[in-house]
Amino acid sequence: MKIGRGPKIVAVIWGDRLLELAAAAKEEGAEVLEVRVDLFKKVNLAGLKKSLKEIKRKIKLPIIATVRRKDEGGGRRYTERERLHIFRSLTPMVDGVDIELRSEKIIGEVIREAKLRGGLALVSYHNLTKTPPDGILKDRACRAKEIGADIVKIATLAKNKRDVARLLCFTYQCPHKPLVTISLGRVGSISRIIAPLFGSRLTYGCVETEAAPGQLHVLHLKEELKKFCPT
Amino acid sequence: MKIGRGPKIVAVIWGDRLLELAAAAKEEGAEVLEVRVDLFKKVNLAGLKKSLKEIKRKIKLPIIATVRRKDEGGGRRYTERERLHIFRSLTPMVDGVDIELRSEKIIGEVIREAKLRGGLALVSYHNLTKTPPDGILKDRACRAKEIGADIVKIATLAKNKRDVARLLCFTYQCPHKPLVTISLGRVGSISRIIAPLFGSRLTYGCVETEAAPGQLHVLHLKEELKKFCPT
Repeated sequence: MKIGRGPKIVAVIWGDRLLELAAAAKEEGAEVLEVRVDLFKKVNLAGLKKSLKEIKRKIKLPIIATVRRKDEGGGRRYTERERLHIFRSLTPMVDGVDIELRSEKIIGEVIREAKLRGGLALVSYHNLTKTPPDGILKDRACRAKEIGADIVKIATLAKNKRDVARLLCFTYQCPHKPLVTISLGRVGSISRIIAPLFGSRLTYGCVETEAAPGQLHVLHLKEELKKFCPT
Repeated sequence: MKIGRGPKIVAVIWGDRLLELAAAAKEEGAEVLEVRVDLFKKVNLAGLKKSLKEIKRKIKLPIIATVRRKDEGGGRRYTERERLHIFRSLTPMVDGVDIELRSEKIIGEVIREAKLRGGLALVSYHNLTKTPPDGILKDRACRAKEIGADIVKIATLAKNKRDVARLLCFTYQCPHKPLVTISLGRVGSISRIIAPLFGSRLTYGCVETEAAPGQLHVLHLKEELKKFCPT
């Protein structure tokens, strides 16, 4: 998977109708799919692997596998051992993985396996309560690069417009690129459209239900990006 | 005139139909009027003063008088002496003046007279060929404040998205507030909607013809600001 000069729209999908949602996402303008394994009600790994193969064959979009930790906004609570097992099973079927910087016990192994398969490692930092000071954001980005991130992803709650502006300026000025940033929450929604202007390489949208606070629909993202960030 | 917490939409108007345009601007959502004296085909000062009085009485929006220098994007070429005369004649009828930092010979006098009348002094720097380095932008803002600006206005041509992002980050981080910034040109249009998020206090729109490259219509500005910068 190449991220190119971006911005690329990533459609976040999960559940039983994975192939159908993937097709809808592509139709609406998504260029990458993120499969959120933590949001499945029940995961049948054999079935999921089959679905991913089918999506790769029929939809032909790069796929990122994510098993978001509960304390960073994830759905179902998995142990680190279970998460490592899921990543190991899915890595051969996907083009990249998204693993939290905080997952110290498994992050090395998850990144190593992804890279062995020629996949991309996104290392993410989520803060669902605030947008911490720039020093902390920079430290997280730096540590993510050091541990082997191909892309650093930072998603933090914006309590007000200043939080949004600050994260955008951080995005523009941070040396640890390529970088993806998102201001979570309603006031942060605008970041999903304008962060690419500041150098953020991916922007996440939903096809049906939103997977994160303030997330916009892929179709809406596509239209707004055309207006505001013409490539 | 108080600028409040903003962002405020300024409608740029000029010409024979001033009162009519002022009314249309207010109807569309403008909160301030800028009368661009340099864009009038022919200026009849007595007639203009009468119009301004009428606008104040009927439209009840604050008015800024501007006689933009030719080399900063102005229309008709006036000598500094003529410009000073125009400012002196109009200052009693308006709530603020916009004078270029570069107008060394008259700026002191224009600001002094505006303040004597309780008016606001906007000191502006325009660059129609590029967005200069941050050091220069900061120097201009600092000098504008030193000379007595109540509001510093910086409008520079954006050649690409990086120029837009850089000016927005400058806006957020510049200590010389209150500040108004604009990225001129087509690629800079987005700044007219999102600069308020970074702390820019005024955003300029047109009612009919655009007065600067990339300017949007007041009505369009109003709608987009509601979406992106809810107050």
